[in-house]
Amino acid sequence: MSIEVHPIRGIPEVGPGDDLAALIVDGLDVSQIALTDRDVVVVTHKVVSKAEGRIEQVSDDREYRELAEREARSILRRRGDLLITQTEHGFICANAGVDRSNVADGWAVLLPVDPDRSAHRIRLRIERAMSVSIAVVVTDTFGRPWRRGLVDVAIGVSGLPAILDLRGEPDAQGRTMNVTEIAIVDEIAAAADLVMGKADAIPAAVVRGLDLTGNGRATDLVRPQEEDMFR
Amino acid sequence: MSIEVHPIRGIPEVGPGDDLAALIVDGLDVSQIALTDRDVVVVTHKVVSKAEGRIEQVSDDREYRELAEREARSILRRRGDLLITQTEHGFICANAGVDRSNVADGWAVLLPVDPDRSAHRIRLRIERAMSVSIAVVVTDTFGRPWRRGLVDVAIGVSGLPAILDLRGEPDAQGRTMNVTEIAIVDEIAAAADLVMGKADAIPAAVVRGLDLTGNGRATDLVRPQEEDMFR
Repeated sequence: MSIEVHPIRGIPEVGPGDDLAALIVDGLDVSQIALTDRDVVVVTHKVVSKAEGRIEQVSDDREYRELAEREARSILRRRGDLLITQTEHGFICANAGVDRSNVADGWAVLLPVDPDRSAHRIRLRIERAMSVSIAVVVTDTFGRPWRRGLVDVAIGVSGLPAILDLRGEPDAQGRTMNVTEIAIVDEIAAAADLVMGKADAIPAAVVRGLDLTGNGRATDLVRPQEEDMFR
Repeated sequence: MSIEVHPIRGIPEVGPGDDLAALIVDGLDVSQIALTDRDVVVVTHKVVSKAEGRIEQVSDDREYRELAEREARSILRRRGDLLITQTEHGFICANAGVDRSNVADGWAVLLPVDPDRSAHRIRLRIERAMSVSIAVVVTDTFGRPWRRGLVDVAIGVSGLPAILDLRGEPDAQGRTMNVTEIAIVDEIAAAADLVMGKADAIPAAVVRGLDLTGNGRATDLVRPQEEDMFR
């Protein structure tokens, strides 16, 4: 099984109240991509948040920091202007996901209130418009504690398992794999980022060729505190 | 720019002394993939390690744990049989990367001694055999502290930058992005894993369509201890 990842071009600057699903459908048309069943539409949360009005004015660094603190459920570490936080959703990331890049000067973009629900809404609207059965993944760009560089991960999912549970399945030697849960939606998010590019204003992509069905949520990816060795 | 990810089929069980590059070239032939310039060949370290003889007998859990401790430069956390370690390369992962899945019973696979060099060697041999200019990424499957599920990451690279440094480039609003270093090889590793599948014995894939050149090393991804807030 091979996969393809196609950027969705032609999505204009998104603002509060915009119908993002309709803009994606238009973009698919511009990009000459005809969705088929089991395609995965990957969207950066930034356009989701903007469409949902999850943007706020921040006039300076102090206001930005206060906003990040307000959006955080808890703060794990603080170093200069950088906060490592847990968000209300449970995700652990910098500055509660509040971001000032790719937004007009003087504004910051917050995470969607419920990104799994956002993914589900977008999915239903695209499915209705195009008469297909697809999945939607909403992404953000996260750092990692021990590895330099950022990667895109899933913060919202609809129509896919978040984690592929291979525990108990035999490996290629017939030996039972005892700890193999793959964070499949994070791998999908990373693959999609390869065609999006931070500077190019391509906020969405289609991942085609995966044969996955299921109904996970991105919050399934949150490691419960009692399992967590690094807080 | 779209990308494609193709599994390389037909690579047999690999053992110490095998010419892995030649086996990959044969697999490309079986898979009817004609490599072109700038293709990225992604290989799981497991076959690299086996070809390099980096396997050891472990007769029981105690011997396995001792081997993992011996392979670790330091141990960050210990919980039951799980060690979170830093390897000699600097990577932080479970059990120093020593793994008993997908290997014959009674054996464990270690990480390559120098996975960047392994990637480079495989690259040169494939390039010579097929008269193309490619990149090679060697991967392993790592957990993450705060997110459930494993993802594939790069532990060896040749012919690619490890990190795409967008710092100082303007974003789509013309605003300078100040902290945007993308761990591009980790995203490539994750994308490749989508077609490899843990249980399917497909140890390699081709990622096609990226337009990247550079000469990074996977060890570029190791966050220096002084930047690290979570040890």
